[in-house]
Amino acid sequence: MEIISGGVTAAQGFLAACTAAGIKYQNRVDMAMVYSKVPCKCAGTFTSNIVKAAPVLWDRDIVEKSEYAQAVVVNAGIANACTGAEGLSYCEETAKAAGECLGIPVDAVFVASTGVIGKQLPIERIIAGTKTMVPQLSESLEAGTAASKAIMTTDTVNKEIAVTFTVGGKKVTLGGMTKGSGMIHPNMCTMLAFLTTDLSISKELLQEALSEDIKDTYNMISVDGDTSTNDTVLLFANGLAQNNEITEKNADYEEFKKALRTVNEFLAKRMAGDGEGATKLFEVKIIHAKDKAQAVTLAKSVACSSLVKTMVYGNDANWGRVLCAMGYSGVLFDPGKVELYIESEFGKLQIVANGMATDYSEELATKIFSAKEVTAIADIKQGDASATAWGCDLTYDYVKINADYRS
Amino acid sequence: MEIISGGVTAAQGFLAACTAAGIKYQNRVDMAMVYSKVPCKCAGTFTSNIVKAAPVLWDRDIVEKSEYAQAVVVNAGIANACTGAEGLSYCEETAKAAGECLGIPVDAVFVASTGVIGKQLPIERIIAGTKTMVPQLSESLEAGTAASKAIMTTDTVNKEIAVTFTVGGKKVTLGGMTKGSGMIHPNMCTMLAFLTTDLSISKELLQEALSEDIKDTYNMISVDGDTSTNDTVLLFANGLAQNNEITEKNADYEEFKKALRTVNEFLAKRMAGDGEGATKLFEVKIIHAKDKAQAVTLAKSVACSSLVKTMVYGNDANWGRVLCAMGYSGVLFDPGKVELYIESEFGKLQIVANGMATDYSEELATKIFSAKEVTAIADIKQGDASATAWGCDLTYDYVKINADYRS
Repeated sequence: MEIISGGVTAAQGFLAACTAAGIKYQNRVDMAMVYSKVPCKCAGTFTSNIVKAAPVLWDRDIVEKSEYAQAVVVNAGIANACTGAEGLSYCEETAKAAGECLGIPVDAVFVASTGVIGKQLPIERIIAGTKTMVPQLSESLEAGTAASKAIMTTDTVNKEIAVTFTVGGKKVTLGGMTKGSGMIHPNMCTMLAFLTTDLSISKELLQEALSEDIKDTYNMISVDGDTSTNDTVLLFANGLAQNNEITEKNADYEEFKKALRTVNEFLAKRMAGDGEGATKLFEVKIIHAKDKAQAVTLAKSVACSSLVKTMVYGNDANWGRVLCAMGYSGVLFDPGKVELYIESEFGKLQIVANGMATDYSEELATKIFSAKEVTAIADIKQGDASATAWGCDLTYDYVKINADYRS
Repeated sequence: MEIISGGVTAAQGFLAACTAAGIKYQNRVDMAMVYSKVPCKCAGTFTSNIVKAAPVLWDRDIVEKSEYAQAVVVNAGIANACTGAEGLSYCEETAKAAGECLGIPVDAVFVASTGVIGKQLPIERIIAGTKTMVPQLSESLEAGTAASKAIMTTDTVNKEIAVTFTVGGKKVTLGGMTKGSGMIHPNMCTMLAFLTTDLSISKELLQEALSEDIKDTYNMISVDGDTSTNDTVLLFANGLAQNNEITEKNADYEEFKKALRTVNEFLAKRMAGDGEGATKLFEVKIIHAKDKAQAVTLAKSVACSSLVKTMVYGNDANWGRVLCAMGYSGVLFDPGKVELYIESEFGKLQIVANGMATDYSEELATKIFSAKEVTAIADIKQGDASATAWGCDLTYDYVKINADYRS
């Protein structure tokens, strides 16, 4: 497997376009479209929030009922959540407009929205934007990059990646893009992620691979503990790599899963590190846990703690907050056995041994925390399981962004 | 029942003192003692965090094993949590010093600590402070107020209240003080609360009344979602009101419970409103829920959401965040039936009807949010249960306080 340039247009047969439809933002692109020349098998995972945005309902139906799909139309600025029957009808209108222009059925078109909750979409502008994008669809890597920028809201950087790997002698490409910065605490998947591959694989295994992988990637990041109404991950596979279709969990399937993990973990970490107002990526590893569930709960509890997050922002090894967050997580462990390490490009330091402070250098601890990526490792000495969660620091800018996000 | 002046020294026979022991802060009082002239029945509730501070272990033992207790010694600045056997021995040394000076058994002395986790107490200064306080113990209301100031850490105001009520023709007084501003997300009780009453009541009913009451008071507030290692509520009853001892759940017991609710709700709300960096108290009421558990979960989910809290700070009726937080809470309800109101001294406004925006005035909504106490009321139209949670806004100052709390 090799990481290559590009994103959603890296795999064969995938095109992208974007446009400035004037949905909320002025003078910037705010709609994107991804399209496959040929029908794709599609897998999707969606928010566990019971307040589900209209596009989530629309897309879930397609994943469940359509054998193939071929396009997705995305807008930034308005979430189309809490919009009732009117909101749902706008999903259909958008898909219909795209389908007519592209010459594909309405139920082959996904839609996705991100932005403020509770406002209706300006549907004329969405339809106009959709029609504008179709003739501009392009296979160029630049078109994929432009699409990844069009779906940003409070994101400060676009997020895309592509990898190639080999299946039965055929080169396969998998690429993807995400957006997400606030309201990030995926409990099924995350804000918006679109993955494209030219792999040939059965729909069942495509869905299974995705559903499994998000547990260790998107579901392990948190910016602010708020699980969005719009979380959506869509994975398109168009088969143009011409490998023998993967229909069982063989070595080819494992190779694909490895590629999927690389892409999803990269995008998930980029999202956590680009959390609203964040200055750094904060990684939490729990090792030697009794089982995976225990490790996951502990890692997320630490990554989500407001007091830990402000500590990371302050470059302050106030480690009691880490043990405190583990302690209220709801799972059992022996606090008196915990070993805690911090690590970054500036070194690794054990700051807690058997639940109590080591005689560590505060100066070195502060230096380690000052890196752009910092890891805390808690060894709970109970077994062989482990888990990693990703978050970010909590800063003045998080408050600033969210105290006046709507205005 | 009547609210009167005072706090922990309002009830008959309770004395308090404080001193500047130089534990962490300079030039301010940082230790307090509360003492009853006669032995008290005591009830206590403690943090559910499995990382329990040494004083929590010490106090829990006294509540469970001692028939009577008579004093509590409190220090601010260092939490005595994650301090191992050494930390626990300091609890005993403190209780022993106090017991010797006061002429009472070591197991009649509670200790409580709040502050940074992981540091050992400067035990000589704690012992010296304890010995200094004993001759200064006073029944004056001022002594109670001074004690409530001595236990503050990042609190900006002291928190005390007292009420009188009548039991069997006898006037009974109940008073209390709390501290708490950060690491506030009680899941058993809250940071530190000390309640004193001259009521005569059986130990069993005293504990039952307290355990019941904290569920609707301290357990319903959240500043930052972090459940402390040190949460402790102690309730002393010395019987000096000379009422016939309450030994069954009669009208007297109900009268006491009403007083307890008044005191605990007042102190809990004061704590939430004085959350680290907070500019206002935010109250969340869930009404017409199926059952209490559903109402509690929904109310807490809204009160704890970072996005809701920044919205409250920004005076912005971005109500989608409220529905979003209800949606990811983990309990079921019909989002399409929700009615949402906001209310403060500046008016009441319905902003959501049947899960969608009403045609409300944004100007009035902003005005309502600009009050020092704001309430959000969500009617979910399922049944007759309700619950109220209290939180506060999330501000720049929360980040500031916690990014450099230790330094």
